[in-house]
Amino acid sequence: MKVGIIMGSKSDWPTMQHAAEMLDRFNIAYETKVVSAHRTPHLLSEYAEQAQQRGIKVIIAGAGGAAHLPGMTAAFTSLPVLGVPVQSRALKGMDSLLSIVQMPKGVAVGTLAIGDAGAANAGLLAAQIIGTQDSTVMAAIDAFRKEQTDTILANPNPAEEA
Amino acid sequence: MKVGIIMGSKSDWPTMQHAAEMLDRFNIAYETKVVSAHRTPHLLSEYAEQAQQRGIKVIIAGAGGAAHLPGMTAAFTSLPVLGVPVQSRALKGMDSLLSIVQMPKGVAVGTLAIGDAGAANAGLLAAQIIGTQDSTVMAAIDAFRKEQTDTILANPNPAEEA
Amino acid sequence: MKVGIIMGSKSDWPTMQHAAEMLDRFNIAYETKVVSAHRTPHLLSEYAEQAQQRGIKVIIAGAGGAAHLPGMTAAFTSLPVLGVPVQSRALKGMDSLLSIVQMPKGVAVGTLAIGDAGAANAGLLAAQIIGTQDSTVMAAIDAFRKEQTDTILANPNPAEEA
Amino acid sequence: MKVGIIMGSKSDWPTMQHAAEMLDRFNIAYETKVVSAHRTPHLLSEYAEQAQQRGIKVIIAGAGGAAHLPGMTAAFTSLPVLGVPVQSRALKGMDSLLSIVQMPKGVAVGTLAIGDAGAANAGLLAAQIIGTQDSTVMAAIDAFRKEQTDTILANPNPAEEA
Amino acid sequence: MKVGIIMGSKSDWPTMQHAAEMLDRFNIAYETKVVSAHRTPHLLSEYAEQAQQRGIKVIIAGAGGAAHLPGMTAAFTSLPVLGVPVQSRALKGMDSLLSIVQMPKGVAVGTLAIGDAGAANAGLLAAQIIGTQDSTVMAAIDAFRKEQTDTILANPNPAEEA
Amino acid sequence: MKVGIIMGSKSDWPTMQHAAEMLDRFNIAYETKVVSAHRTPHLLSEYAEQAQQRGIKVIIAGAGGAAHLPGMTAAFTSLPVLGVPVQSRALKGMDSLLSIVQMPKGVAVGTLAIGDAGAANAGLLAAQIIGTQDSTVMAAIDAFRKEQTDTILANPNPAEEA
Amino acid sequence: MKVGIIMGSKSDWPTMQHAAEMLDRFNIAYETKVVSAHRTPHLLSEYAEQAQQRGIKVIIAGAGGAAHLPGMTAAFTSLPVLGVPVQSRALKGMDSLLSIVQMPKGVAVGTLAIGDAGAANAGLLAAQIIGTQDSTVMAAIDAFRKEQTDTILANPNPAEEA
Amino acid sequence: MKVGIIMGSKSDWPTMQHAAEMLDRFNIAYETKVVSAHRTPHLLSEYAEQAQQRGIKVIIAGAGGAAHLPGMTAAFTSLPVLGVPVQSRALKGMDSLLSIVQMPKGVAVGTLAIGDAGAANAGLLAAQIIGTQDSTVMAAIDAFRKEQTDTILANPNPAEEA
Repeated sequence: MKVGIIMGSKSDWPTMQHAAEMLDRFNIAYETKVVSAHRTPHLLSEYAEQAQQRGIKVIIAGAGGAAHLPGMTAAFTSLPVLGVPVQSRALKGMDSLLSIVQMPKGVAVGTLAIGDAGAANAGLLAAQIIGTQDSTVMAAIDAFRKEQTDTILANPNPAEEA
Repeated sequence: MKVGIIMGSKSDWPTMQHAAEMLDRFNIAYETKVVSAHRTPHLLSEYAEQAQQRGIKVIIAGAGGAAHLPGMTAAFTSLPVLGVPVQSRALKGMDSLLSIVQMPKGVAVGTLAIGDAGAANAGLLAAQIIGTQDSTVMAAIDAFRKEQTDTILANPNPAEEA
Repeated sequence: MKVGIIMGSKSDWPTMQHAAEMLDRFNIAYETKVVSAHRTPHLLSEYAEQAQQRGIKVIIAGAGGAAHLPGMTAAFTSLPVLGVPVQSRALKGMDSLLSIVQMPKGVAVGTLAIGDAGAANAGLLAAQIIGTQDSTVMAAIDAFRKEQTDTILANPNPAEEA
Repeated sequence: MKVGIIMGSKSDWPTMQHAAEMLDRFNIAYETKVVSAHRTPHLLSEYAEQAQQRGIKVIIAGAGGAAHLPGMTAAFTSLPVLGVPVQSRALKGMDSLLSIVQMPKGVAVGTLAIGDAGAANAGLLAAQIIGTQDSTVMAAIDAFRKEQTDTILANPNPAEEA
Repeated sequence: MKVGIIMGSKSDWPTMQHAAEMLDRFNIAYETKVVSAHRTPHLLSEYAEQAQQRGIKVIIAGAGGAAHLPGMTAAFTSLPVLGVPVQSRALKGMDSLLSIVQMPKGVAVGTLAIGDAGAANAGLLAAQIIGTQDSTVMAAIDAFRKEQTDTILANPNPAEEA
Repeated sequence: MKVGIIMGSKSDWPTMQHAAEMLDRFNIAYETKVVSAHRTPHLLSEYAEQAQQRGIKVIIAGAGGAAHLPGMTAAFTSLPVLGVPVQSRALKGMDSLLSIVQMPKGVAVGTLAIGDAGAANAGLLAAQIIGTQDSTVMAAIDAFRKEQTDTILANPNPAEEA
Repeated sequence: MKVGIIMGSKSDWPTMQHAAEMLDRFNIAYETKVVSAHRTPHLLSEYAEQAQQRGIKVIIAGAGGAAHLPGMTAAFTSLPVLGVPVQSRALKGMDSLLSIVQMPKGVAVGTLAIGDAGAANAGLLAAQIIGTQDSTVMAAIDAFRKEQTDTILANPNPAEEA
Repeated sequence: MKVGIIMGSKSDWPTMQHAAEMLDRFNIAYETKVVSAHRTPHLLSEYAEQAQQRGIKVIIAGAGGAAHLPGMTAAFTSLPVLGVPVQSRALKGMDSLLSIVQMPKGVAVGTLAIGDAGAANAGLLAAQIIGTQDSTVMAAIDAFRKEQTDTILANPNPAEEA
């Protein structure tokens, strides 16, 4: 288990599964779990405090609205924490984004884009972090990056189907 | 001790002291303490979980930026929690406001205005909550409200000094 | 009758009924009424001024757009007033939120989140306020909070149906 | 007395005096008064309800933050009400603007720009309204408009002092 | 013809017809016309400059996005101009609102809410302006206002159909 | 080939085709190509650096979200670059707009409106730039402008079908 | 005279002079003039309509708040118009930006950044437009661009004085 | 050299030095360099492409306004890239934040808060990433985190000097 993917609610899964899919692509083991900062705060502290000794290298945390999960996870661990702002209903994720990114000095969250793209990129950035010490993963990332470049180069005409 | 006033940093005190001053006006006992959601998360859970048995009736929590203190306090207690968005440097408290007010269903924070007025009103609203069961406090609030009305009625000319 | 739930228009009911449902859960008696700050201002002052002597302990007021109902209710009573920003069409409730939360020093509104979650939490916070003097209500809130924690703990896998 | 200029606080006067100065320019009689929606709500209803029989033709109301004065004034009178969003500290008047302009169908406030320019233009628009039935005022407005045009035409070089 | 209702595009009509319907209610004669600030600027200057001599008392101008029609109309006439921000596709009318309301000192536009409610209220405010010199219109406005108050008073239960 | 229309993704084509259609109207030759700043950065530098010697006069670049394509294109060429903010899912193009327009001193992007109108106007502005040295194009633009004026003048009634 | 630099007020000159300085650098002749959309609308139409026959190739227009000058200039000419949002007092130029950039299909303004950088870049982009037909100007731009690159390359250490 | 700290301009150094200071605290070797996406794009691609083989593990990139440096750096390397939104003049860093964080799927930037706190936290997060494979660094981070906790615990009274 290298990466923990946690989220504040089951309703965040359609977004957060994009992180899981990205990690699948690089054959990086991960676990997924609902951990709510507000409804299961003791689970959150327990999860975050034990993650390192369980072998977790990076935690990805997604939440929406007054999104406290990523920042509070970071408060309980020295592992790198990546935050995904889930798109909220009224304010379209602007509340989620500011709640996650505007952390005070001393406790950091690496924040990705609002919604699906952000979740996918959290998976990618987790892989890049693991790749700094695992050349197989780094090679897989390089291949993925080359592949997405090649896909565009092979189909440069916007008006045609790929 | 009826009210606990907590804040994420000493730098929040110039704002939060307005809550204390308002409670002084109504002779309501309170305590003030720096409790950081991110830097002292265990203190936060301990403080919030023990508040009720220590006789606290209302907790006022002020924080800025990705302001998690009010919401996390509410996660650890069933006491009413009032949140004060402290004005932040770059985003002028809009980040603080959204981080505090946009709580998910099931854990509530009664949020006041950004900055000094919000802190003063948190003190006032705490007093109003206590006043629902303490007629002396309610009478003091009525008097305060009447006084601020009378101050305007006595000096209705905007161009003159009061 | 412990809680008054008022709203600016019948069209606010689908939002505000979440406050009523939360109070039902705690067996707290309430009344619901359309009171428009702009279209029935005399009803508003009458309602707010008589609420306390009618035994009301907390008023929940929901409104959208230039939402003046919560703040004006607070202007006419010393009871705690909780404000719910109803999601507006063009600006998605940002106008409602700012119109309710940015009250000046001296008249307070405890503001909840935009929309359904905010309305539910207004009901919850009203219960918490009543719970400060009613141990039966407080026990019911503790039970509700435990139940929502247990629901997550029992179904921690985001990818499975509960 | 043709125009009533009211404002929520003495601190609004440096802004609102620009409305008064504009009316002076057109020799339109006006009165100025502090009337707070939140702190003197009965004065507000009384002022607004009696304005028409006292001969007032237009009411200009300025307020900041959760600015309820213009909309509540409009709730109590059928006279035209013009609203001036006073620049607030944290949100720079965006809260004032949205609280004033986003009125629901059925109660209207003609809203001007945030701050000094808005206050001056509230005076100008009040004069234009009076000018629809007073050709002397209309002629004075035409002259003012011509004068400000001529000032620019006479000094078209931006790099030189006028 | 007392009121001119102009708009930047035919696509603004579904919004602007609410202004027309409100004037119908008060038996105030009006005309409706597409006048685009950007595509028919000469028509705009001609329309605005001739409006007063044609007997128009108030001009209502609606536009969306970089909404220049209300402000440019005001630049060509001393008649009162009311602006309606039409809801735009991407920015939901926030662009329209700021483009209309933030006029510089010396040329005023009385701005109403974004969308249908704003258009209806532009019709109402135009009627109120005319009502300052026409007691029949003022009586009709008073009746309309009373009727909308009575509708709420007669159906105060939000959970029941009216 | 006078104009290059590039975009960050095939999904931008429904927006960017409006630029192509506008150039068709003026018989200006153009090419369209997917060039991603993030996924094909070398293609971007190559494209931008070679554009001038290939006879391109203006480059139109459209992108959404953290939209770096227009600005990076401008970094690699001295040709005029026009930027089109494509409407993004969560933030409705506000992120795209700010990412494109807020360029630092020394590298310029002429930015158009968010979405379809902006893409069409990028085509129009490219034509206007070419028109400064090509009187046939300028005449075609004048004719287009006159035609859109005439369309409104011929159908000024907003309530009728054209 | 190749470029016309116009602005809504003399107070815009400290911003707009950056456009002039940039043109000076490329030895491009320009004129500067105060032309207010709202206060001198006839001057605006006259200026814009005559610019092309006077030999102007590009118009740079700067304005703040409800900034109508660039869009209205574009309404009266087929020349390329570049818009500079001047930083406004309350809303910091967000109002200026949206008022300039969100133009409807059919009348285009190439918009630059808010404030000084935007004005400088308007001068640069005007030069780039002229450079498409003037190889001396294009060479000067290339040199300017190379110089600003070299300045950074020569002083890459951020902590040292250049 | 484990970490590269780059920034778009020397004027970003007062912000970005907080990243350097944080790395100093953990004895992590780093380099600092001005690399402008817009003014030195070739230096950027060269720097980013060679970073990995030079032993760099993490790149921290700070920029303001239309901040393209972090995202473009990520486009040229598979190393983890952390982005710091530098506070901009007009829009206070909101433009910088959105330009950095809203990256499309496939190229990720871990974004920190606007300004000094964000820069410090970029240094901290870079250390945390390195700490996943270096137990000395991880121990130093744990000590830093404990120290900042202890500082608060030792001085919990907000009204007293520490």
